[in-house]
Amino acid sequence: MTWDGRHLLDVESLDVHEVERILSLASEFRLDEGRASFADGTLRGSNLALLFAEPSTRTRLSFELAARKLGAETYLLEPPASSMVKGETLADTVRNLDAIGFDFLVVRHHRSGAPWVAARYFAGHVVNAGDGWHAHPTQALLDLFTLTRALGDMRGRKIAIVGDVLHSRVARSNVWTLTQAGADVSLCGPTQWLRGLESLPVTLTSELDAALLDADAVMGLRVQKERMAAGVSLDEYFERYRITESRLARSAPGARYLHPGPINEGVEVTRDVARGPRSLVLEQARNGVPVRMAVLAILKGPAPTVSQPESATYVGTRG
Amino acid sequence: MTWDGRHLLDVESLDVHEVERILSLASEFRLDEGRASFADGTLRGSNLALLFAEPSTRTRLSFELAARKLGAETYLLEPPASSMVKGETLADTVRNLDAIGFDFLVVRHHRSGAPWVAARYFAGHVVNAGDGWHAHPTQALLDLFTLTRALGDMRGRKIAIVGDVLHSRVARSNVWTLTQAGADVSLCGPTQWLRGLESLPVTLTSELDAALLDADAVMGLRVQKERMAAGVSLDEYFERYRITESRLARSAPGARYLHPGPINEGVEVTRDVARGPRSLVLEQARNGVPVRMAVLAILKGPAPTVSQPESATYVGTRG
Amino acid sequence: MTWDGRHLLDVESLDVHEVERILSLASEFRLDEGRASFADGTLRGSNLALLFAEPSTRTRLSFELAARKLGAETYLLEPPASSMVKGETLADTVRNLDAIGFDFLVVRHHRSGAPWVAARYFAGHVVNAGDGWHAHPTQALLDLFTLTRALGDMRGRKIAIVGDVLHSRVARSNVWTLTQAGADVSLCGPTQWLRGLESLPVTLTSELDAALLDADAVMGLRVQKERMAAGVSLDEYFERYRITESRLARSAPGARYLHPGPINEGVEVTRDVARGPRSLVLEQARNGVPVRMAVLAILKGPAPTVSQPESATYVGTRG
Repeated sequence: MTWDGRHLLDVESLDVHEVERILSLASEFRLDEGRASFADGTLRGSNLALLFAEPSTRTRLSFELAARKLGAETYLLEPPASSMVKGETLADTVRNLDAIGFDFLVVRHHRSGAPWVAARYFAGHVVNAGDGWHAHPTQALLDLFTLTRALGDMRGRKIAIVGDVLHSRVARSNVWTLTQAGADVSLCGPTQWLRGLESLPVTLTSELDAALLDADAVMGLRVQKERMAAGVSLDEYFERYRITESRLARSAPGARYLHPGPINEGVEVTRDVARGPRSLVLEQARNGVPVRMAVLAILKGPAPTVSQPESATYVGTRG
Repeated sequence: MTWDGRHLLDVESLDVHEVERILSLASEFRLDEGRASFADGTLRGSNLALLFAEPSTRTRLSFELAARKLGAETYLLEPPASSMVKGETLADTVRNLDAIGFDFLVVRHHRSGAPWVAARYFAGHVVNAGDGWHAHPTQALLDLFTLTRALGDMRGRKIAIVGDVLHSRVARSNVWTLTQAGADVSLCGPTQWLRGLESLPVTLTSELDAALLDADAVMGLRVQKERMAAGVSLDEYFERYRITESRLARSAPGARYLHPGPINEGVEVTRDVARGPRSLVLEQARNGVPVRMAVLAILKGPAPTVSQPESATYVGTRG
Repeated sequence: MTWDGRHLLDVESLDVHEVERILSLASEFRLDEGRASFADGTLRGSNLALLFAEPSTRTRLSFELAARKLGAETYLLEPPASSMVKGETLADTVRNLDAIGFDFLVVRHHRSGAPWVAARYFAGHVVNAGDGWHAHPTQALLDLFTLTRALGDMRGRKIAIVGDVLHSRVARSNVWTLTQAGADVSLCGPTQWLRGLESLPVTLTSELDAALLDADAVMGLRVQKERMAAGVSLDEYFERYRITESRLARSAPGARYLHPGPINEGVEVTRDVARGPRSLVLEQARNGVPVRMAVLAILKGPAPTVSQPESATYVGTRG
């Protein structure tokens, strides 16, 4: 077991049992939805700071909701209000957040590795909410949770990830969790975006039809203009890699579609796929909250049974 | 009764009894002010998102305070941090907010009709906090509440609304609630801003003195430079339509002054009127909170008597 | 006693006993840290608005944490979302915040005197969180708290404040509290920045070595390029006034280093000083929360013993 259970920085440090434990607790939180979740005092008295150097409404709100449903207080740091604009280093910002007394730090940053820098200077728990091109562990966990709920056991399932896989932290983290869960993963995009990925335990292909063949699920990625590879035009790219119903005819019957959002409908995917019966996109949004609740609750660890009796229930069911 | 009681999108869907019910509950919340309002658990466990595509500190804070006084948690989405800047449509943003699990969505948007789009994709309750030139229902309700507290029964009362009435959602919503309550409303501004309003059950006039004659209350509106009608200069406009004490000599004794804010003192109104004994401007700010509490509590509906005993009191008094 | 106990606008209105009372309550809150501070209901039901016309992540978060640990709800107003951008005056903004129903207003503003304007129009409690070049009372209180914890009784202690002392509200407020506590204070910087300070009960010197001689503590200040005095280059300034270990050899054994942050490491101070054993910088961040908790709790005043039994403990210990 490589995970120290203190921070969640990447999925690579989680073994299959740890992933299972997170998803199993997330299932309880999902079942629990109808009930007054605020009664859960797992994080009562905890203060969670969201350091979002790279803004993301969706991920931020999902973490905020997860934390508050467990009873924590949340605090937001976003540029340009952040003192980081004054030239302070990330290390100094984090040392100060630690001293001020935060218990959790959720970091989203355009620089790969930023959450590791944060973890070095923070006595509490750091959660990576996406760093550069590197990792997005809670996204990969909620994707696996969503796929498992939809398809059951992932062993032998064929999953195609399509788009700018080279610069995608979502793809990178998903490759790990999906292959660890036993799925066959293929990455698909222009050859320029497949270079350097040869060591991954996946199939690389620049042919969309090959990737879609018998696929049980297709995961789209957002394409950012500024990252277009030299020699590939956006129009050409979308012509060749846009996910449509007719192309999905080659995939397994009932193949599902996922996308971490936000989606450019009609660009990387047609509206009938994105909003149709195949789509798990809103399920992903829905599952983000219980999965993040599970991550935060497990990082917090079992409550001392004497001083915090109100969280005793979860200690019991989790153990 | 045209109101389904699920959303509050405009005032036109509220009949006179529904308006009365809202204002009556608002009265209770106002009386209640000295007491610890947080004990009211009507919205305990509810999560309310404020989607403010068009920023407004005053309205936002008023809704936030109202929601939290009822026990809800509030979450803010404002540009530019919003993912909307990434090209996501309003419909997709709302579908995601719904999936993430929000119970209430308060929408302020520069586009007329945006809250209706939101309501189509949101399983919870949508409240319009101002859309384009179209509607601002909670503002009209708090204005009626304020006027009724100051003047009593509105039947036969003369109310003049002065300024850019054509582009004002505040004027549009107030015309409905005031006339429904039995007031005689006149709209006053340059003729360019009166065109197309002929079908409204109001008096139109471009003469300020005519509008002010025997008026029981005058409601000022903010004039925005970018909406100045062709052929009207700002200086000319303010010279002709600025509300002053001497002009108010023609109005009824003790005539009151209202303005939705923020006010440009000395421009659309003199300071002695805006801050003097006639002014209800701060009463409007004060009444915004109980009126919005009433709206949110009524949208939420009666609590199940078994599972949420702490809100039983309000169920009783509201019924 | 010149302090009316309603607002905290500057430190000059606090006599030595009032400062002692604040620091003594802060000590209790610090000792209390391990316990569930949320149980403290001193500010339960209070609504605190943070009007930060000049952004500051550190100070804002410190106040937010302090307020919420006492049970208050916090609300943030920051530009550009603030309605102030629409031309509303500070007075009108504050009159509206008062009417909406806030109980506390924490004001940070680039204009000296802004919190006094706010206090004139606010029925609740105003706390100055830094105004222009003028005052930063909670910073001075937390600095004194930090110094007292590190050095004990301040009488006869030698404290050097180095940098742009002329334009520093931190320096200005610290001079008052430190000299009132009996310390010998020297202000050090280029002669242009010492002009007009002759009436202060401190030693003025443009020689860093003189200021550091036998100093028990050195307080650095941030230098802002736009405030560089005519005839002084940044490079020259830092060469002459940068705090280094070798320069600190002249100070008292175990001399401590303070800085209100954010620090430009390597510019106004070397990293080995800023992060070394002398540094009290993170202690300052840590102490900000209990000192601000003490200020807010004392401004709130003793709770009525009947209606708020949950805060009875603090009433007892504070009285």
